Amino acid sequence: MQARLLAQLRDEGPLSKAQLADALQVSRTTIGAEVARLGELGLAVEAGPAASRGGRRSTLVDLSPDIRFAGISIGATGLSVGVTDGRLTTLAMHRRQSDIRQGPEVVLADALEVLREVMAEAGVTRLSGAGVGVPGPVDFHRGVSVSPPIMPGWDGYPVRDAVSRDLGCPVVLDNDVNVLAVGEQHAGVARAARDFLFVKIGTGIGCGIVVDGELYRGVDGCAGDIGHIRVDDFGPSCACGNTGCLEAFAGGAALARDATAAARAGRSGALAALLEEKGELTAADVGLAVGQGDPVAVQLIRDSGHRVGQVLASLVSFFNPGMIVIGGGVTALGHALLAEIRGVTYRRSLPLATGSLPIVLSELGDEGGVIGAARMVSGAIYSSDSSRSA
Amino acid sequence: MQARLLAQLRDEGPLSKAQLADALQVSRTTIGAEVARLGELGLAVEAGPAASRGGRRSTLVDLSPDIRFAGISIGATGLSVGVTDGRLTTLAMHRRQSDIRQGPEVVLADALEVLREVMAEAGVTRLSGAGVGVPGPVDFHRGVSVSPPIMPGWDGYPVRDAVSRDLGCPVVLDNDVNVLAVGEQHAGVARAARDFLFVKIGTGIGCGIVVDGELYRGVDGCAGDIGHIRVDDFGPSCACGNTGCLEAFAGGAALARDATAAARAGRSGALAALLEEKGELTAADVGLAVGQGDPVAVQLIRDSGHRVGQVLASLVSFFNPGMIVIGGGVTALGHALLAEIRGVTYRRSLPLATGSLPIVLSELGDEGGVIGAARMVSGAIYSSDSSRSA
Repeated sequence: MQARLLAQLRDEGPLSKAQLADALQVSRTTIGAEVARLGELGLAVEAGPAASRGGRRSTLVDLSPDIRFAGISIGATGLSVGVTDGRLTTLAMHRRQSDIRQGPEVVLADALEVLREVMAEAGVTRLSGAGVGVPGPVDFHRGVSVSPPIMPGWDGYPVRDAVSRDLGCPVVLDNDVNVLAVGEQHAGVARAARDFLFVKIGTGIGCGIVVDGELYRGVDGCAGDIGHIRVDDFGPSCACGNTGCLEAFAGGAALARDATAAARAGRSGALAALLEEKGELTAADVGLAVGQGDPVAVQLIRDSGHRVGQVLASLVSFFNPGMIVIGGGVTALGHALLAEIRGVTYRRSLPLATGSLPIVLSELGDEGGVIGAARMVSGAIYSSDSSRSA
Repeated sequence: MQARLLAQLRDEGPLSKAQLADALQVSRTTIGAEVARLGELGLAVEAGPAASRGGRRSTLVDLSPDIRFAGISIGATGLSVGVTDGRLTTLAMHRRQSDIRQGPEVVLADALEVLREVMAEAGVTRLSGAGVGVPGPVDFHRGVSVSPPIMPGWDGYPVRDAVSRDLGCPVVLDNDVNVLAVGEQHAGVARAARDFLFVKIGTGIGCGIVVDGELYRGVDGCAGDIGHIRVDDFGPSCACGNTGCLEAFAGGAALARDATAAARAGRSGALAALLEEKGELTAADVGLAVGQGDPVAVQLIRDSGHRVGQVLASLVSFFNPGMIVIGGGVTALGHALLAEIRGVTYRRSLPLATGSLPIVLSELGDEGGVIGAARMVSGAIYSSDSSRSA
């Protein structure tokens, strides 16, 4: 009841007691008692008379204006940190470069330093909770990251408890893809979708799965790990130790590797010039070369999109989602990538499953991770055990 | 409330009012009123005093002994029909050969004739409801089968309404794989699993998906259509019009086709002898040849298992299920197939997702379809609108 009432206010904005009674299918008296209790907990407030619907005047209820959440979204090469109000509107947000391979102490210290800057900017002194996303598998219930292939030093590290101790508030930890999926559900193109996939193509590749409006984590918490689906028996070797994984063909690291090889072999003048200038190439440099009309760079992006499309076509046949949202750093490469992904996915799936299936780019960017992390902890705070002590 | 109470009695057996009150978290008074109402509807009965738990004696509640469900499970080459009581215990069941390509009028008339035999055998004169499974895509809400590749004449046919008119009771229609998955959940190896996949390898190949104890159908009702996942760009052509589909490599029809080719080319004496004797080969004949130690037949089954394993490995990475159950006619080929499927699936998935993942053969056989179909309609009857009229 508490969780559903607060989630209504989070997702719909201020509502009258009469509207809340309708939405939750309980009496106005019950709503009145619950709002009074949530007021004592500092979670909800009465916000004056509601506009009349005819009949007895109702009172408007809103989330407490003092609620503040932190969203910390850690990627392989950078992190985004923001603070939001109770409705998950971003009040301030910063982004900083940070290499995940520096290990948890350094990266988390970076993140908390950025958080303090952001809090100062937004005039926030006290947090109700913080959500954290990390770019690898997470044991959700224990709040630790587990055997992450690209994250030396993070295996078994108690991220949740370390951050919670530093901030003095409850913390929820999940992997970055799940966090982005939840952000997309709250504030992005997937707002109206009940069953959708969020596919992140960054340094690595992963997928967040939403079933009937709820994140699906799988029995061991590792659902959506599509970057290690084998797409070719004789493909390049992957950070995970296998060969032919999707990620080893099509992730940002794979694009950078193939671009470097093309530059060194003299197959692309544009990429060779960028390599000479910068010393090393990233996926973003492939995008620069595409902008210069370099045909090798265009082909690299097409190949990457083709491999992603192959896997997505299988997932469409299996899962029949209502929408696929593509996000992550590589999507900055834009519509050439999307066109190839769409082409292969639509061509290889049965018409029934793709007839009304939108495949779209995320429009949230880094803010999706901040909002998603904030929403994860908001769910925990709004449904917390405080209701039992009343 | 009605649905949850009746489902408790269906899945757990007779319970005291006190146990029901605990399980549904309502008062004994509420349970008493509800049981009285369900008694008037002919769904539940009071069945004498319950064994004492100390304190006030409670009354035992059971499903009405008059409830009877029919389960009609139609496959590509045969159908199984049974009747059950309210707890889905099979009272009688028959199986008959029937070719789906004869079209809906002929096949449904066959099924209803078998049903009348089964009802006579079990002394059943009145049905509470009937569940029907067909081997192709279904529009669940409209109760019709849609564009089924192997089922000429079935596209748009109103299966549900036709059977309902004939039997004079409510009918639920779904595809055979979903029906088998639900049967497995009720009475098979997946009883304790909340998230599992049921993979049917028959003439075609399909997958039932259970998420948090509920069947997941996808937004267009075609989730689980894994038979048409493309496993090779240059594979054999498939009944669906594409090339390289899993089903075209590894289904029962594909096995029969490859076995026939091997027999004709003189590559397998055992298969050639069977072809000579029978005029045509089926997947079961490949099993016979394996029993005779024929190496070509063994290789055919290994290749089939390898392709299925390839796809399952992808699905394990994506979905992280708690169990995979393999069923369908081809599983009569037994453990050589299962060993290959297991080997490939375990080898290609990340250890985290397969560490505790059982991949097992269904033990229910044809009865799984009958129980699953009965359970589908039981869910509809037990939660039906009768509660609103009270």
